[in-house]
Amino acid sequence: MAVLCKPAIAVPEYVITNEETLELAQRLHGDHPQIDLVLRLIEHTGVQKRHLIQPIDKVLQHPGFDARSITYEEHTKARVPAVVRRALDQAELEPRQIDLIVYVSCTGFMMPPPTAWLIGEMGFRPETRQLPIAQLGCAAGGAAVNRAHDFCTAYPDANVLIVACEFCSLCYQPTDLGVGSLLSNGLFGDGIAAVVLRGSGGTGVRLERNGSFIIPATEDWISYAVRSTGFHFQLDKRVPGTMEPLAPALEAVAEENQWNAGKMDFYIIHAGGPRILDDLSHFLDVPPEAFRFSRATLTEYGNIASAVVLDALGRMFDEASALDGHRGLMAGFGPGITAEISLGTWTSESES
Amino acid sequence: MAVLCKPAIAVPEYVITNEETLELAQRLHGDHPQIDLVLRLIEHTGVQKRHLIQPIDKVLQHPGFDARSITYEEHTKARVPAVVRRALDQAELEPRQIDLIVYVSCTGFMMPPPTAWLIGEMGFRPETRQLPIAQLGCAAGGAAVNRAHDFCTAYPDANVLIVACEFCSLCYQPTDLGVGSLLSNGLFGDGIAAVVLRGSGGTGVRLERNGSFIIPATEDWISYAVRSTGFHFQLDKRVPGTMEPLAPALEAVAEENQWNAGKMDFYIIHAGGPRILDDLSHFLDVPPEAFRFSRATLTEYGNIASAVVLDALGRMFDEASALDGHRGLMAGFGPGITAEISLGTWTSESES
Repeated sequence: MAVLCKPAIAVPEYVITNEETLELAQRLHGDHPQIDLVLRLIEHTGVQKRHLIQPIDKVLQHPGFDARSITYEEHTKARVPAVVRRALDQAELEPRQIDLIVYVSCTGFMMPPPTAWLIGEMGFRPETRQLPIAQLGCAAGGAAVNRAHDFCTAYPDANVLIVACEFCSLCYQPTDLGVGSLLSNGLFGDGIAAVVLRGSGGTGVRLERNGSFIIPATEDWISYAVRSTGFHFQLDKRVPGTMEPLAPALEAVAEENQWNAGKMDFYIIHAGGPRILDDLSHFLDVPPEAFRFSRATLTEYGNIASAVVLDALGRMFDEASALDGHRGLMAGFGPGITAEISLGTWTSESES
Repeated sequence: MAVLCKPAIAVPEYVITNEETLELAQRLHGDHPQIDLVLRLIEHTGVQKRHLIQPIDKVLQHPGFDARSITYEEHTKARVPAVVRRALDQAELEPRQIDLIVYVSCTGFMMPPPTAWLIGEMGFRPETRQLPIAQLGCAAGGAAVNRAHDFCTAYPDANVLIVACEFCSLCYQPTDLGVGSLLSNGLFGDGIAAVVLRGSGGTGVRLERNGSFIIPATEDWISYAVRSTGFHFQLDKRVPGTMEPLAPALEAVAEENQWNAGKMDFYIIHAGGPRILDDLSHFLDVPPEAFRFSRATLTEYGNIASAVVLDALGRMFDEASALDGHRGLMAGFGPGITAEISLGTWTSESES
């Protein structure tokens, strides 16, 4: 069965601390009627710093959607290949051994997708399948793992490369002044993650089952307005409360596998914000430290959208605490409101 | 094995004939230095009429990307459900029996994808997987069939709904005056297609194998510039010549199945333009009438992007000439330059 190997992560070189974010929010929006609420919400994110592809002064200038689209493509081409190379090395595979590339990114748009360039640039086979997903937002990290898993279930010898590339700072919209927008400005960060799902061999999480769940009639809760100024992120205040309806969906997928979602050995959860993690640990009845990988991602990088779950997974590899046979649950959450859920068992090369 | 059932197709109510297109091109661009070439190219498309979601006068006014995004969403919600309902009826399935929705559309952008709304609206299960693809252009019809096939290979009891929704007229850009743009203005049309891939049972094309091929270093040949005015379609004049390198890729996939791509009983080919069909019949050494379903789509609807292959497939159902055991080849072509290829055998309910 397919094994999710050690992810490669890269965050860019420009750093903004939460203190700087708070100062900035105060300076730019000191006269906003709800500035105290905004500052309190940003303080409570638990984010200590975030990484950006450009200096903050440049991020704050909106140069127009034309220029941003060019910047998105330039930084994709400049930054993604090294992360992919590292993910392949960690999986001990060459580009020619990859059968499918799942590429997820919701913070810019290219047609053809970046995979078209990447295949020639890095020596993937011309027969490599491309699966670009732009519309699942933060849930796309989990969706990428799940669709890769499906592919390896269909073709057990196949290997899949997953890339999550998110430049959230390119969606900063200076004219959006709702509380949700101002909070988001203090929450999201930039980051790139890549990981290989090996059809056989490898050390990591052997995927066993996946599932999706969408809460009906919530498609407006997290959404983009697509405008001449680009993608405008719209966040409804009901979103932090979505773990109550989603926790049973996680439990249901676990039960299908005769597992108990509250008794896993490890958890890789999308760290959308602190309330998501607090509520989910409450509803699944697991101790807060069970989500330590996700909390560390949030603290050090902010919410890096679809890359969060892969970064959290990388932190579990770094901790090196998982033992063969340990059972775990992964979950990405995002617009829809959608959950992408998967179950897996830690396996080391010698066991597989 | 999974069977691709009879597709449902809908084209909108506003019609523009090729004569009207030629008059319009002459009127709007009579002083263009290459107007004679443009008119000749449009004449030679073989398109007789195209269907549009709005009257032509409205199509020609660019109301801004904000308004176009709203129009895209409104027409999606108004027009897609009836086509989906018909595809489900033709497959004799209810929404609750669908496990995955593959939704392809490159002519507008929504996050979350339209599936998030559709699932609640039409009574699909909250556990339905969503696979939205926006970045594969015209090749996405073939990609949707192939990823649906992979899913049914992984989960043989699963049923997949495919939707291809293309409102190409919403990408009309009045300021784009290159020959490729003016030709495209006379070539593309609007249309919606939906089809069900049944895991078992059903009459249609039993899918047996699929493959992809990308011609390296051609990612700039068909592309979008993503700008404040929306998606700007960029078409390189080398595109019509791409069947020479792609025909061997079709042959290779057929050979993997011990089939001969030049000796199929039926062909469902993306009708990007007349040269694509002429060249491919030349390189595969098949008579022109082998591509009659694709030619009929091009003639009656123009190039309806990812929906072309599904419409051509629908015409084969209507002709009712396929016999059990007939072998066929489907191929979508699009940006990358990418081909999405699949092989299948006609099967009627009594045989499966």
